[in-house]
Amino acid sequence: MPKIVVLRLGHRPQRDKRVTTHVALVARAFGADGIILTTRDPAIERSVNKVTELWGGPFFIRSGESWRKTVQDWRSEGGSVLHLTMYGLPVDEVLPRLQGKDLLVVVGAEKVPGEIFEFADFNVAVTNQPHSEVGALAVLLYRIFSGFKLEKKLLGGRLMITPSDKGKKVKKAP
Amino acid sequence: MPKIVVLRLGHRPQRDKRVTTHVALVARAFGADGIILTTRDPAIERSVNKVTELWGGPFFIRSGESWRKTVQDWRSEGGSVLHLTMYGLPVDEVLPRLQGKDLLVVVGAEKVPGEIFEFADFNVAVTNQPHSEVGALAVLLYRIFSGFKLEKKLLGGRLMITPSDKGKKVKKAP
Repeated sequence: MPKIVVLRLGHRPQRDKRVTTHVALVARAFGADGIILTTRDPAIERSVNKVTELWGGPFFIRSGESWRKTVQDWRSEGGSVLHLTMYGLPVDEVLPRLQGKDLLVVVGAEKVPGEIFEFADFNVAVTNQPHSEVGALAVLLYRIFSGFKLEKKLLGGRLMITPSDKGKKVKKAP
Repeated sequence: MPKIVVLRLGHRPQRDKRVTTHVALVARAFGADGIILTTRDPAIERSVNKVTELWGGPFFIRSGESWRKTVQDWRSEGGSVLHLTMYGLPVDEVLPRLQGKDLLVVVGAEKVPGEIFEFADFNVAVTNQPHSEVGALAVLLYRIFSGFKLEKKLLGGRLMITPSDKGKKVKKAP
């Protein structure tokens, strides 16, 4: 199974706290292996690790790492870099070329450095409309994994949900 | 074409400003007709209307409307209510039953009132994992519309993007 790691650029702890948390939780729920934030933020690390502990993993989060070094390391291990941007090529068009590749998926918070467009092997748009890196990442991962089946790989959590048409059914994981 | 409107519950203007904006922009980009916030917030109305003016519509946003009345009005016009919740039934299982229905898609910010689970015709989960109402809404709309084709219905904007493998290509809309 190819590796997928999300690289979150330009996270500003005060302003982006909630959106970056959504990015991280989407990455986990839809089957990425982990997320790296370029800005150091121990509070988000703790809150995401807590979700993984409760609901299963493996899923890693690290913060305060240089995007340039992350990209270079990823490349030197043979991986490809995919930049999610509304200016990119349609995901449906690019998808066949992603098959079997280890992917570092770059999502920006504030404006991303122009170099990212050059560094990326793939600049990919989930619609060419302005919306949300959270929504774009969710649909990208859903497309890459052809559905939700990766949810089943989340193991070792303490809680799980029994899907229900009314109300909340949560039980202890076996 | 069935109507789809998003109902955002419990939006707190300071805390949820950015996430609610993402919810609204995902609703627009993925083909919903509009969004209603139960909390009044003219600032978000302005920023979403500005996106619609620049990038196309139609898409409406209204705020400060009672969820109970919105649900009742929707019902009295024959529409169904779909509540997005991690506790719900898998979207893939529910999808065939949504065909052709006008849908009010309820997404919560803070904890939603328990009654919503009862009021809803469908309690739907996009994975039974904790993640993000933004990601869940994106995947739900993507599934309902079987892809991005609704993007093409966005008309009358001033700008449009030419998809590109490098850099940003924006032009004036014809």
